[in-house]
Parts: sequence; structure tokens; C-alpha cells
Amino acid sequence: MDQTALFTLTYGIFILGAENNGAKNACIINTCGQLTAEPTRVSITVLKSNLTHYMVDASKKFTVSVLGKHASLETIAHFGFQSGRNANKFQNMTYKTDRLGIPVIEKDSIATFSCKVIEQIDLGSHTLFIGEVVEATKLLDAEPMTYAYYRELKAGKVKPVNLEEQQALPEQNTQYECSVCHYIYEGDISFEQLPDTYVCPICGQPKKVFYRA
Amino acid sequence: MDQTALFTLTYGIFILGAENNGAKNACIINTCGQLTAEPTRVSITVLKSNLTHYMVDASKKFTVSVLGKHASLETIAHFGFQSGRNANKFQNMTYKTDRLGIPVIEKDSIATFSCKVIEQIDLGSHTLFIGEVVEATKLLDAEPMTYAYYRELKAGKVKPVNLEEQQALPEQNTQYECSVCHYIYEGDISFEQLPDTYVCPICGQPKKVFYRA
Repeated sequence: MDQTALFTLTYGIFILGAENNGAKNACIINTCGQLTAEPTRVSITVLKSNLTHYMVDASKKFTVSVLGKHASLETIAHFGFQSGRNANKFQNMTYKTDRLGIPVIEKDSIATFSCKVIEQIDLGSHTLFIGEVVEATKLLDAEPMTYAYYRELKAGKVKPVNLEEQQALPEQNTQYECSVCHYIYEGDISFEQLPDTYVCPICGQPKKVFYRA
Repeated sequence: MDQTALFTLTYGIFILGAENNGAKNACIINTCGQLTAEPTRVSITVLKSNLTHYMVDASKKFTVSVLGKHASLETIAHFGFQSGRNANKFQNMTYKTDRLGIPVIEKDSIATFSCKVIEQIDLGSHTLFIGEVVEATKLLDAEPMTYAYYRELKAGKVKPVNLEEQQALPEQNTQYECSVCHYIYEGDISFEQLPDTYVCPICGQPKKVFYRA
């Protein structure tokens, strides 16, 4: 088996926040994906030896901050390359507290979610947590950091993205996408003009599950 | 809840192959991620109404082809926007058959995996399958297609990537990465010169779990 084949998989980079009995912590993960649209569920995979894993496992709740392409290596190192067992990662760090009582990092992020764990699978070294999203906030209209970009950044092959320049680009969000099967509408008449009886040609879901992507 | 916050999550694009009792099919998915390194496990999420879902569920095995950034919209439409119930997607299409008897599409792909389902979770509209990777092949040293790039391609905002130009770029793979926690080695001496007793400073795993990424 060629293990490098697995490196072709695409990931983002996220800050995972947790709170348990008044204690809080956060770490970096690269696995967060949406599972279903209704109800809105996501999955995360967390290394068991992380303190944050213990807190999510105990409290059955977590937050995810989606880092933007403008995020600094310092932010990733701060949350990713030290353990909450030895350092208070929230000292001198601005954060919010969500309605579940969990810290939410907005620094360098473009969106945040709050989730309740509804199921989990023991994978040996990691646990896969399935979370029902109870709160979701888009913070910035900017590109997400990908794991591939982070690696290039760390190797000095690319420069950090300048957020101001990125946001100055005209953005045309005119695509409508099925939130269930991700089909992108491409008919001749505008999506808004379609009758309410329109259904997704791929998965048969109604017009209301389409989002302006 | 702002559903557009969920659109900031990063995905690749994949062809999911399946075989059941001599019948074969394939569809497009955008969720495939590695869960653990030892054993090598990945997860996929598949819409239940897909014929391919039925076959994976019945046969407990599947293949994944990781599409490259040079993949054509035609290939994605061929596997994604028609059902195997109405069309034979393998007619006039070159494919291989892996040792589990499943079709593997190499066209427009940069890596392929063969997996056995070891666990699955019913998510309502979708099923999350956890697969143990029994075969993995890197086909091309080229960039993976991301879901974000596919959407821009479909909207005509970007042009298809020219594979020849992309491969002509000098590639320097000198990073060593922990396959368990994804820590990238950044010490002053070269990774090869580190003693065999070296352990990952983040997760404590031995030197042998590091890969040249």
C-alpha cells in the first residue's frame, strides 16, 4: 500500500473548542465535514491523547472555528503545537463563549459552529464524533485555509494571504446549490423564477433545500 | 443558524466505485477523509438514494478515485449527474478491476483506494461508511480537485488546469509529517539524521510513523 496516496485527500484546518466543568481548551484538527443538511450534522475526528478530546468526550459538545487562508502560522502553532495540560491557551487570547458555554475563537476564522455530540465511534487512536449543529455563524466572506496550503505556508513555498486584498476582489455568488446532494442549478431561467414545485433533478429534494452558495 | 457558514468547509471530489453480485456502478462524492493511520481507515458519506449506496451497503466494499484539478467537468457529470439505474456508466469508459472485484476509475484521477466497510452509521438522508484501506495507489504527482475549485470551474470563473504545465513545476518534497497527528517536523537537523528513538513532540508516536509528505 502506498501511504502517500492518502495525502491526496483534501482537508481544511480548524480550531476545535471544548469546555467541561468550567475548564476549557482548544486544539487544531484538519477533519471537519458536513454529513447531512437536515438535520445539520458534521463529523470531526480527534486524536484521543489530546486534552480537548477528553473534554469533548466528557461534555458531549464542541465548537469548530474554520480558519481562513489569511490565518497566521502563529495561531495554528498556539492551538496546535502545545498542550492545554501545560499551557493556558486562552491567556491573552480573545474569545467568545457560545450558548453551550464553550469557547469560540474568531481570530483568523471565517465561520464558527457550535455542536452537540449525538454519536461517536472509537477508532483506536482517534474518535469520530458526530455533532448536531445548534449554531452556525459566517464571519467573513473569505477563502478557507486548506491543509495543503498550510503545508506550503509552513515550508515557505507560499506567502500568507492578505485579507484586505482578498476581500477587495469582486465576488459573484449567483450559484444555487442543493444542500443535500450538492447539485448546482444550471438551468436557463434564473433559480428564483423556478416554481415552488421544482425539485433537484439529482436527488429529488424540494426547491427549499437549495442555498445561494 | 446561518447555513452558508457550512459552505466554508473544505472538500475534495471523488469517484466512488462499487460492485455487488456482478453489477457495478460509480457516483461522485465530496466527502472522503482519512480517519486513522494505523490501521489505515477512511470515511465516506453517501446519499442513500444513490444506486452506488445500495451496492456499498450490500457488498461492504468500495473504491475511491481522487480526482485531480485537471479533471474535466464531463467526467464529473458522467458519474455524478446521471443514475446507474438509467445508464451504464462503464460503457465506453476505461476502468480497472481491483482485487476485491470493484471497478476503479483512473481517468482524471491522482490516487485510488480499495476499502472494506468495517462500520457504518445511518444518518437519515446519508450513510457514513468507515472503510479499512486494503490497497492504495498514487497515480500522479498533481494537485487534487477541491470542491471549491469545481464550483468555480462550473461557474466559468476559472479555467481547467493543464496537467502538463502543472507537472512541469519543480516539486520539492522535503517535509516529514507525522501520520498520526499531522505534525510537520521542523528541527534544525535533517529528519533522516534523527535517532531512531525520536518521537513526535506532539503525539509521542515513534519516528517510523513519519512520512515524506
